[in-house]
Amino acid sequence: MQEKLDDLKKRLAEISDIHNAAALLGWDQQTYMPPGGAAARARQLATLSQIAHEKFTDDAIGCLLNALHAHAHSLPYDSDDASLIRVTKREYDKARRLPPALVSEIAYASAQAFESWRKARNESRFCDFAPYLQRILELKIRYAGYLGYTDRIYDPLLDEFEPGMKTAQVEAIFANVKKEIVPLVHAISSKLHEVDNSFLHQDFHEDKQWDIGVEVARLIGYAFERGRQDRSPHPFTTSFSRDDVRITTRFMPDYFPAAFFATIHETGHALYNQGLRHELERTPLADGASLGAHESQSRLWENLIGRSRSFWKFFMPRVQAVFPEQFRNVNAEKMYRAVNRVQPSLIRVEADEITYNLHIMIRFELENALLEGRLAVSDLPDAWNTRMQEYLGITPPDDAHGVLQDVHWSHGSFGYFPTYSLGNIFASQLFDQIKKDISGLDTYFEKGEFHILLDWLRANLHIHGRKFTLDELANKITGESLQTHSFTAYLKNKYGEIYNL
Amino acid sequence: MQEKLDDLKKRLAEISDIHNAAALLGWDQQTYMPPGGAAARARQLATLSQIAHEKFTDDAIGCLLNALHAHAHSLPYDSDDASLIRVTKREYDKARRLPPALVSEIAYASAQAFESWRKARNESRFCDFAPYLQRILELKIRYAGYLGYTDRIYDPLLDEFEPGMKTAQVEAIFANVKKEIVPLVHAISSKLHEVDNSFLHQDFHEDKQWDIGVEVARLIGYAFERGRQDRSPHPFTTSFSRDDVRITTRFMPDYFPAAFFATIHETGHALYNQGLRHELERTPLADGASLGAHESQSRLWENLIGRSRSFWKFFMPRVQAVFPEQFRNVNAEKMYRAVNRVQPSLIRVEADEITYNLHIMIRFELENALLEGRLAVSDLPDAWNTRMQEYLGITPPDDAHGVLQDVHWSHGSFGYFPTYSLGNIFASQLFDQIKKDISGLDTYFEKGEFHILLDWLRANLHIHGRKFTLDELANKITGESLQTHSFTAYLKNKYGEIYNL
Repeated sequence: MQEKLDDLKKRLAEISDIHNAAALLGWDQQTYMPPGGAAARARQLATLSQIAHEKFTDDAIGCLLNALHAHAHSLPYDSDDASLIRVTKREYDKARRLPPALVSEIAYASAQAFESWRKARNESRFCDFAPYLQRILELKIRYAGYLGYTDRIYDPLLDEFEPGMKTAQVEAIFANVKKEIVPLVHAISSKLHEVDNSFLHQDFHEDKQWDIGVEVARLIGYAFERGRQDRSPHPFTTSFSRDDVRITTRFMPDYFPAAFFATIHETGHALYNQGLRHELERTPLADGASLGAHESQSRLWENLIGRSRSFWKFFMPRVQAVFPEQFRNVNAEKMYRAVNRVQPSLIRVEADEITYNLHIMIRFELENALLEGRLAVSDLPDAWNTRMQEYLGITPPDDAHGVLQDVHWSHGSFGYFPTYSLGNIFASQLFDQIKKDISGLDTYFEKGEFHILLDWLRANLHIHGRKFTLDELANKITGESLQTHSFTAYLKNKYGEIYNL
Repeated sequence: MQEKLDDLKKRLAEISDIHNAAALLGWDQQTYMPPGGAAARARQLATLSQIAHEKFTDDAIGCLLNALHAHAHSLPYDSDDASLIRVTKREYDKARRLPPALVSEIAYASAQAFESWRKARNESRFCDFAPYLQRILELKIRYAGYLGYTDRIYDPLLDEFEPGMKTAQVEAIFANVKKEIVPLVHAISSKLHEVDNSFLHQDFHEDKQWDIGVEVARLIGYAFERGRQDRSPHPFTTSFSRDDVRITTRFMPDYFPAAFFATIHETGHALYNQGLRHELERTPLADGASLGAHESQSRLWENLIGRSRSFWKFFMPRVQAVFPEQFRNVNAEKMYRAVNRVQPSLIRVEADEITYNLHIMIRFELENALLEGRLAVSDLPDAWNTRMQEYLGITPPDDAHGVLQDVHWSHGSFGYFPTYSLGNIFASQLFDQIKKDISGLDTYFEKGEFHILLDWLRANLHIHGRKFTLDELANKITGESLQTHSFTAYLKNKYGEIYNL
């Protein structure tokens, strides 16, 4: 049996190397690649992806997994080997169900849809994008059919990003959250002027923004000798091993929070990957558990730490040292309030911590309606605008600021959006547990000691890699399934105080 | 037959994509990779290299090549298809002769030898490196045996870098060159003081050196939209397609020529790759013909252009604009003489255009002696020092400045060194032809018009990619085999005038 396990691991190690090589090609594509390199890079990525797919869906892997199935059941569920066999089997079964021709067709249609989307967004013309989106939608409906489902067509698509999670569960979670935050947003709406963030809109020299970003990343534990930061149009985190986890950022010269919080956010993702165990390297377990679990880490550091009062008690003098003119009359409390200003707005990526989730819910509801045939593509802009008015009290002036703002649908990534909010929700659940386990947490943060938090995350979450689903992790770490009361209580307490509700 | 050819091309395209992906991993390793990434990167490179090797040595490729053999002979020798089949067959036959276990063993021994060499060079202790070199030597003797040879054991090793070239031919070429340049070096040795280059040793701000490097690269035709320049400890050129060809450089803050000529040199390599035909992409023909042919392009631009009087007539005001203090009293003529100063010295990479070739000949002779058992590894330092004294009139003070200076032998790259001089020699042969084909070349250069030269190189050399051997190219372009009289005449004329011989 050991021989079979070794054979499996050897094959998976090779496949993992290919994926990590492809990840470097993707990183380069978004950071340093000259424009001329684009066409060849697309081919190289397609080739690596195809080789990895062929090797992973090889019959031999299926045979090994079948032979090892009983062995896995004789081991503890959470052991490395049992988890490796279980998770690999889950991925293998999914990969085998998909006809390669359909996967290629979607890749091809996505490339076309992406180009169409980019042009349509620039010109704010949804109707130009509609036929491409229609095509993607039809292909993804077929795709979901191949993966199979018993309840909702959204289930297998969601499962790709959030293994084990069901659409009905997300609906219940979102309903709980929405019930609490829609009234909260309405209550704040009449008091928007009570928080001043005008001083965040000044000139902030890019080099200094870079330096303060590096400082905060290092402060919260990012190991630069096992990573690096570069510039890219859209910030992202990627890794080629646990010892080479890279982040990127971009700067707005006249708005301080953009790069600062993007850096903390990406550092949160990076800390997760830098915290994986060596033993899981070159296996399918060498990553975060899911997109939601990953987002819980970026959001925890960005919002629960980076937008906390105790963080700014420590960090305010440091940003003041770098930008003395701009923050001359700003103390920690003023900064704390400013970076937490609530403002219902049109664009998801610029949204505050509360309204962000309403943006997500709109997308989740519309995706389900489209996939279930309850909504025609041509009616999508109207449906979008109606919900924006209903949830956020605003209506987009055009499609570019509405239904066309996100790239995801052009990629065919239906099922991706909800993981952003699941991350927010899980972050609060984790944080409640952390506060139970470590007393006087704020006192540490006020002294700039964040390692106690990172150590906890490493010991309780990061070390597991991709062994468990989000719900399994929630149960293992907090003793209960993913729940929303931590998150809604956090929002109500924090913003109730800030806005004096 | 077309179907078989298409099948072959499809397989080769996939393999080419893997090699190009690996090249990006190598580029990143030397430019941006954080220290932590090293171990995983070595594994990823090994995996890609193994997959490419497996795919290339697949029986199916052998069958296709055999089936296409007759077809190739029915096509013109220089057609794309005939060349593709011929060159692929040549590489395939070589690859099939090598036992994968031996290739792995050499890769492993090289990694160890490299570490040993780095340490031994730092401590200037050849004896520490000797056993590793001995091991590499034994493995390469076996390696040459598998590749096979009828005349000299050096032949198959040389053939890896310079296809079709024989050791005896190199010996004859080098004897011709040595006969002419050893007396030239001796004649100059008594007049070294006649050329002043002291003004090249001043403070040159790195950012300004960077700017002037970019300016000269662009001037001679490097397309930055299909490439980029970065920093690395050792300058190099690499490419992932003809539309993504990158160069690197490094700076000496107190010596102007180091980065300047390194940039022109690497740009020369890059222009070759940027000039390949689209139609050869994703085939084994998508590269320079050989290392010698590649070096002819870097040396042509670096020395025949960059160290020419007409270049400095145009370019001197430009460097003066960037470094007005440093070059206040320097005119084009003074610069021309300074950058051509001859100085027998210990280190190959710092050598001038004449003595450089003597460094190469020493290595070539010693490699042959080692491989043929005429020289023991333990006697290598003495043999090195004796030849240095004989050819250059100087003796290294220690092994670090002598036998340990180059990395090549630790990599097992026997057969590589002579291609540097073959490049110098071929560059002069090409340049004589260019002067025949284009009259008034200097007048163009004095006006900063280098495109006429690049166009000629593109039309006569670059477009062929890897279709022909160096000798085939020489015959095709100049009507005669690789010859040395162009090179020796160039050196004697140029340096005879500078040193008033």
